[in-house]
Amino acid sequence: MEAYKPGLEDVIAAETQISYLDVEHEEIIVRGYSLLELIRSACYADVVGLLIDERLPDAQRRHELEQEMIRASVPEPVYKILAMLSPAMHAMDRLRTALSALAGFDPEASTADPEREQAKAPRLIGQIAQIVANLAHVAAGRAPVTFRSDWSFAENFLRAIVTRAVTPQEVRAFEQALIAYSEHELPNSTFAARVVASTLSDLYGSLTAAVASLKGPLHGGANEAVIAMLLEAKTPDGLERLIRERLARKERIMGFGHRVYMRRMDPRAQLLKEVLADLVKAKGTGELDLVALCERGEQLMRTEKNLYPNLDYYAAPVYYALGIPTELYTPLFFAARSAGLLAHIIEQHRENRLYRPRARYLGPRGLHYEIRSHT
Amino acid sequence: MEAYKPGLEDVIAAETQISYLDVEHEEIIVRGYSLLELIRSACYADVVGLLIDERLPDAQRRHELEQEMIRASVPEPVYKILAMLSPAMHAMDRLRTALSALAGFDPEASTADPEREQAKAPRLIGQIAQIVANLAHVAAGRAPVTFRSDWSFAENFLRAIVTRAVTPQEVRAFEQALIAYSEHELPNSTFAARVVASTLSDLYGSLTAAVASLKGPLHGGANEAVIAMLLEAKTPDGLERLIRERLARKERIMGFGHRVYMRRMDPRAQLLKEVLADLVKAKGTGELDLVALCERGEQLMRTEKNLYPNLDYYAAPVYYALGIPTELYTPLFFAARSAGLLAHIIEQHRENRLYRPRARYLGPRGLHYEIRSHT
Repeated sequence: MEAYKPGLEDVIAAETQISYLDVEHEEIIVRGYSLLELIRSACYADVVGLLIDERLPDAQRRHELEQEMIRASVPEPVYKILAMLSPAMHAMDRLRTALSALAGFDPEASTADPEREQAKAPRLIGQIAQIVANLAHVAAGRAPVTFRSDWSFAENFLRAIVTRAVTPQEVRAFEQALIAYSEHELPNSTFAARVVASTLSDLYGSLTAAVASLKGPLHGGANEAVIAMLLEAKTPDGLERLIRERLARKERIMGFGHRVYMRRMDPRAQLLKEVLADLVKAKGTGELDLVALCERGEQLMRTEKNLYPNLDYYAAPVYYALGIPTELYTPLFFAARSAGLLAHIIEQHRENRLYRPRARYLGPRGLHYEIRSHT
Repeated sequence: MEAYKPGLEDVIAAETQISYLDVEHEEIIVRGYSLLELIRSACYADVVGLLIDERLPDAQRRHELEQEMIRASVPEPVYKILAMLSPAMHAMDRLRTALSALAGFDPEASTADPEREQAKAPRLIGQIAQIVANLAHVAAGRAPVTFRSDWSFAENFLRAIVTRAVTPQEVRAFEQALIAYSEHELPNSTFAARVVASTLSDLYGSLTAAVASLKGPLHGGANEAVIAMLLEAKTPDGLERLIRERLARKERIMGFGHRVYMRRMDPRAQLLKEVLADLVKAKGTGELDLVALCERGEQLMRTEKNLYPNLDYYAAPVYYALGIPTELYTPLFFAARSAGLLAHIIEQHRENRLYRPRARYLGPRGLHYEIRSHT
């Protein structure tokens, strides 16, 4: 047997044709394309096609994918179930429950056939987006918002969340965040989804595991922690004070560092930083100067800890600038990542091998029940 | 980086004080005790204490644990949500949804503090048992059965399922199956739960991932496949014919073989085989001679494939002899394993390290969006 690697660090747990984090060249590759190039130039439906169909769609296929995602409807009982849950329940727990229930309305819910999964993936991405967009509405007793086929997927998604007219720049910033989060090799949530899928369990079960994973404060929960910190700090000086205090207490500062990137800046963060700057320039800085705040935190962490921002650090203020409720930040991570997750589950089912590692036992041996018990 | 090990076979993914599969000595150790000894002599509350409290309970603590499990109540809305799901929905999908929803009624649902988790584990085990016992009732529109504090946990659980008086022998056979399934090192479902828990996600999310994993035909779903095969075969000769046909078509015969035990008999299967024989002797064989059927299949698979029965192969006919509906076999696996799963999640939270392996990229590189697209 192998040496024990805590957290499976540097262990290769899958072979994939989906994506690659080339740390040396600071590049994220998605099916051959640079993710940064996709964030700059592609639309989300392009990325869905690339991930699910395994190639960039042509104009007709792109339109088809977009329409499938927009027209996917969420069965009424799923919203009814959401409405029965306490609004105090964590948004990711409500999302997990709704997604789990959604399986009940898919007659093919239990299939692990990659072709069938590929066929229904765009619909599922659209349903997930609509559930996420409506989490806060349903919790507040408002009627769920449905998508319209004359708006793009990204515009539908953003408008459904903020329930107001949005500018093309806002839609594009939101779409760029969706693409930035769409796929990222084998983080915990994707690994969890593949582990579950390897029993030949289905899309719903595997995705549910990913929601559960992303809820964790060490994973998807980080973007909410970032905005909480920025809002508490209010000013660059306030942020510096707050970070220094936390560092002195040896607390973890969320939004910095990444197991894989280690001592380099997450390339997605750099791009979202530009998106944030442009968005703030057009909308004004409001009460918080988000750009100056983030910049100060970034500089301080580099000087003090030699740590660089990750995607969450710059996605959180983008969401804030767009007026998205904080409780939706992690659900949005999942909605965006659903395309990548589905690609990984399908890939797992195409060439499956059950994940079944071993554990090293460090406990006692040779105890006996008869002697010990029934006293 | 390491060599790629498909399915992480032989990779040590955790250090644990919970259990050990000693393949060489054909022994399963649970916190120092032989699992077979526990199946023979202990009650389920003993095993819950051993797994959760990390030591065998004394008589008083055993009573406390039993009462906590029995008195744990399932909130009314959880049953209402179950009732809203289609009865055609897979029982594991309904269980996953109910368990996910249950989080909404625990004000401490999101904690990853091992002490708090330890404190609420017995209640959660009791709630899970009651949800599982009522899955079929609620789907059929019947009122959920509640547990009574004057019956043991095992008697309550079995009676709630079969809704009739049961003999002490039946209760004991059922309890022995619960103990046999209670803990088993790092199978896919336990690994999935630990992977999710490592983000500091909580008990509900981690357990939900385990339900999703156990649903898979390569994992928990095997016990339902076993009984389906036995019922289809009807007689030993019929079973021999059926297995030979399937082997000729190179189909997998469920209930045989195990990644870890490989070419030896699962020691739990041997014990459940005895439980089955005793149970059938007392109850009569009914229309099916389960003992003769299973024996023939076991012999044939040994001769033909050098494969031995695993636990599912003998647990399935025990459940059948007890009159448990087939759709509850896999949910029962989960209910029994919930004690082991909770122990693993708590252990993961006690000394956590985020699971974040790597993947090996085999796809293309150097493609460009601008050239390829918008045609």
